[in-house]
Amino acid sequence: MTDERRRRPGGRTARVTAAVRAATVAALTEHGWNGLAVEDVAARAGVNKTTIYRRWGGRDALVADILLAAADQRIAPPDTGTLRGDLVAFVRQVRDALVAPANRALMSTLAGGGHDSSLAELGRRYWAARFARARPMVERAVARGELAADVDADALIVRVVGPVWFGVFGPRTDVDDAFVEDCVEIVLRGTATQAGNSSVHPEKSNP
Amino acid sequence: MTDERRRRPGGRTARVTAAVRAATVAALTEHGWNGLAVEDVAARAGVNKTTIYRRWGGRDALVADILLAAADQRIAPPDTGTLRGDLVAFVRQVRDALVAPANRALMSTLAGGGHDSSLAELGRRYWAARFARARPMVERAVARGELAADVDADALIVRVVGPVWFGVFGPRTDVDDAFVEDCVEIVLRGTATQAGNSSVHPEKSNP
Repeated sequence: MTDERRRRPGGRTARVTAAVRAATVAALTEHGWNGLAVEDVAARAGVNKTTIYRRWGGRDALVADILLAAADQRIAPPDTGTLRGDLVAFVRQVRDALVAPANRALMSTLAGGGHDSSLAELGRRYWAARFARARPMVERAVARGELAADVDADALIVRVVGPVWFGVFGPRTDVDDAFVEDCVEIVLRGTATQAGNSSVHPEKSNP
Repeated sequence: MTDERRRRPGGRTARVTAAVRAATVAALTEHGWNGLAVEDVAARAGVNKTTIYRRWGGRDALVADILLAAADQRIAPPDTGTLRGDLVAFVRQVRDALVAPANRALMSTLAGGGHDSSLAELGRRYWAARFARARPMVERAVARGELAADVDADALIVRVVGPVWFGVFGPRTDVDDAFVEDCVEIVLRGTATQAGNSSVHPEKSNP
């Protein structure tokens, strides 16, 4: 984990946080959600398990901490001045995050959690935070006149992110920059055509 | 699992196969890939573990058997006479399969298997079989003149399936029939527009 607590940079709190987060991802990668044990995380991080229980509360909270820190900080919402530019930058950031092994473990843990209510609740919080961070790209495009006001922002985000997400976690498609640009281009043009060329004006910008 | 061996319908082989497949999915859902044990599967299915080792060989082969049977049989490639009709029917079938809890466990097992070479090999075989089954939809569209001959069939499939796959495994989007139809519509129109209206002719059909 590159993210660390800000209030005591380099201090013991930051070191413990970073060590515990890294240990959680390593344990999750090796044993999966069902085999994730606080004792194992503590041993890997070189801390006492009571430190983890006191600061985080348990394994749900450990994974929640990593996911929500990632949702807040790892993928900053781009603001390039055009919807196309924002979406291409955004989907590239998502792609770069997804191909990291730690994120593969975290995302597949969330994806498999349909039967586990604490994981399902974690997933709801994680995705709500992610979409709240992404939605302003669409809202700015509406304000600039690039999109109709009644556009479904979340559906648009799902359509541009979906092929990359599926490509990485499913068939391991080569999701290079050209693939990402095509994803955004096709969805924007398809959306514009579907709405009789009135809902998307990708050339217009207001920097 | 609804799929059963054909050569002895209703016989002991078919019953054992169905019981072992169901037990494998149940064990995978409860314990994940890392906790999947042949002993546990055998106990759930009411068979001796030597039966499983003799017929399947081990836990990799158990999961491979289920996945490849699903790839072959659960999702038959549609042939409606138009590319749009085929893709809408196909993505609906994918959606219906994905929302089943058993498939959530199987897919998240595959998705998380980046660090596990036997799982990665299983994933390669599974996705190769799935794309081989889907590709003829695109090839027929090329033969009918609906798509340019140089279209990237796999990329087209990733683009129409991706939003549904991400929606189900990520933010749990409501992937209803209207969402599926919009996915196909937007990708086909976006692809046509991108290629100067020459690569997709969605209205043309040859039933």
